[in-house]
Amino acid sequence: MTETSQTAKAKPFDDIRVLLGDLPPFDEEAAAAARARDAELTKPAGSLGRLEEIAAFVAGWQGRDRPSMERPLVAVFAGNHGVAARGVSPFPPSVTAAMVANFRAGGAAVNQLCKTFNLSLKVYELALEMPTQDFVTAPAMDERTCAGTMAYGMEALAEGPDLLAVGEMGIANTTAAAAIYHALYGGQARDWVGRGTGLDDAGLERKADVVAQAVAFHRDHLDDPLEVLRRLGGREIAAMAGAIVGARVHRAPVVLDGYVACAAAAVLHALDPGSIDHCLAGHVSAEGAHREVLRRLGKAPLLDLGMRLGEASGAALACGVLRAAIACHSGMATFAEAGVAGKDA
Amino acid sequence: MTETSQTAKAKPFDDIRVLLGDLPPFDEEAAAAARARDAELTKPAGSLGRLEEIAAFVAGWQGRDRPSMERPLVAVFAGNHGVAARGVSPFPPSVTAAMVANFRAGGAAVNQLCKTFNLSLKVYELALEMPTQDFVTAPAMDERTCAGTMAYGMEALAEGPDLLAVGEMGIANTTAAAAIYHALYGGQARDWVGRGTGLDDAGLERKADVVAQAVAFHRDHLDDPLEVLRRLGGREIAAMAGAIVGARVHRAPVVLDGYVACAAAAVLHALDPGSIDHCLAGHVSAEGAHREVLRRLGKAPLLDLGMRLGEASGAALACGVLRAAIACHSGMATFAEAGVAGKDA
Repeated sequence: MTETSQTAKAKPFDDIRVLLGDLPPFDEEAAAAARARDAELTKPAGSLGRLEEIAAFVAGWQGRDRPSMERPLVAVFAGNHGVAARGVSPFPPSVTAAMVANFRAGGAAVNQLCKTFNLSLKVYELALEMPTQDFVTAPAMDERTCAGTMAYGMEALAEGPDLLAVGEMGIANTTAAAAIYHALYGGQARDWVGRGTGLDDAGLERKADVVAQAVAFHRDHLDDPLEVLRRLGGREIAAMAGAIVGARVHRAPVVLDGYVACAAAAVLHALDPGSIDHCLAGHVSAEGAHREVLRRLGKAPLLDLGMRLGEASGAALACGVLRAAIACHSGMATFAEAGVAGKDA
Repeated sequence: MTETSQTAKAKPFDDIRVLLGDLPPFDEEAAAAARARDAELTKPAGSLGRLEEIAAFVAGWQGRDRPSMERPLVAVFAGNHGVAARGVSPFPPSVTAAMVANFRAGGAAVNQLCKTFNLSLKVYELALEMPTQDFVTAPAMDERTCAGTMAYGMEALAEGPDLLAVGEMGIANTTAAAAIYHALYGGQARDWVGRGTGLDDAGLERKADVVAQAVAFHRDHLDDPLEVLRRLGGREIAAMAGAIVGARVHRAPVVLDGYVACAAAAVLHALDPGSIDHCLAGHVSAEGAHREVLRRLGKAPLLDLGMRLGEASGAALACGVLRAAIACHSGMATFAEAGVAGKDA
């Protein structure tokens, strides 16, 4: 074995950086073929608006002339956070595990949404009994844990989905997401925090203080987005980042959930803006500065329904729109098939 | 038989006016019960945003504690228009019947959307071989035809739907809708017209001229919204107006499609703003002034996806959101059932 193959000596983040440097591109030919079919369908050109864009987008990222949604997977990653001890959520950390049990029993919102739109759901528990470190006074994770969790997130692709929706569950994780945004985008901490599961005014102020303190504590190490992720993130955010990268490698377009899921996307976007080109914003959340985050990511949300639940609920609902887009593209008759006269006929 | 029971002597619109004067109200008790259940579900209060509002809205209009969507019907009304002869559409009038055949064969966008969201579809052909009069020089319909077509539209309720989505097909009907909006809301004709199925600049100008001429021709008869409907509307618009009223009587909430469907709603709204309280705006269309129309109707659209196809496509897609809302309300576990600690526990 040569020196260079001894990857155990490499820094854990190196593999991620290598992967990001060699992501598969959009398949322009497949997208053009999908658009050519679209132009023949029995409707005025452009009249299905974003549904038409979605069909070509999915085709291009899947590398197929006909976009498919035969094995859509909703992946929900759950983690716990040391910072929860600072009273940044009105719910106790035990709710993370209780909600995971609720997901498994079929009782959560995301279960109903997956049933409604015929989506597979998989829940990934990330060492719930081992919360991350309180990032106000220490990095949330060491590099090995962060990189390992990203790799674990890529495991969602082992299911072989042709489309991946990513979301999360984790009491206090809107605080982690706010800290990531503040670290990446600057401004004031209060610009990025929201009420999460329902903080009152005092709680919101406390949360902004926590975010400000955390970013101040780590300020000398925030130039590298992966350092931002491991210092201020959480296991579920790292896993979502891994899942997003893994989906790109496996040619599965991604539907992002809301405020917390986009923190994973924002880390990748900061590393390389093109690395999330295969992602659609499922919705704009009512939480915090999600609208501004989407603007910075260059993503126009599919839905704007005042949702702020997380657990992939916004992404799963958006998958209904994707189902519709792909059904129209696949199932509609062409003008020739239907014997309908075209424009100016 | 007394004089007053001889309805044959009554004006045909009288029955409509009587019906509008006695519409069933929102069932506040049912909606309160639905909201009470919602408050117990395993999610932070309000975190499903408009999905929660939809569940209570449907419950209140159905008069049921648990909103249901067991028999949703998408009703598409098709009509032809004398004004089509004035070159206001790039497609020939024969496309109306051809698209009806396409609906029946399952090849149109609305067919794929109904399949995706498990919605029944019914297409109502309205004497396609007898276009309405060219409303630039004559009323589109006489009162008997207009009232009779409204009554026919109510027949959609004979299917017993628990939810009704209304849409239309009819070459040149965006011109009729624009004329209705111009008559009801004033301004300039060009404020209300759009490109329909894809008019070029010259066509758009011609269409605005046609609308201006039509409204000028009928200007002395436009104080009564039902006169606006019969003079400037079309059979499918009259039928949709009837279907909307019929749905109210039968306690089926309505999902409105886009620019043309809302012309039917606008006529009713002008007669009595409360008469369309049971209607949701499925989406905001990319056509013409639909956003401004919705503002005047006081409706916030569920979707904003740049669609402008008609044929109930936006409403059918929005029915996917309603399915999701009702599935969450019906299927989610309560905090007690799931053993999840509540807020501030």
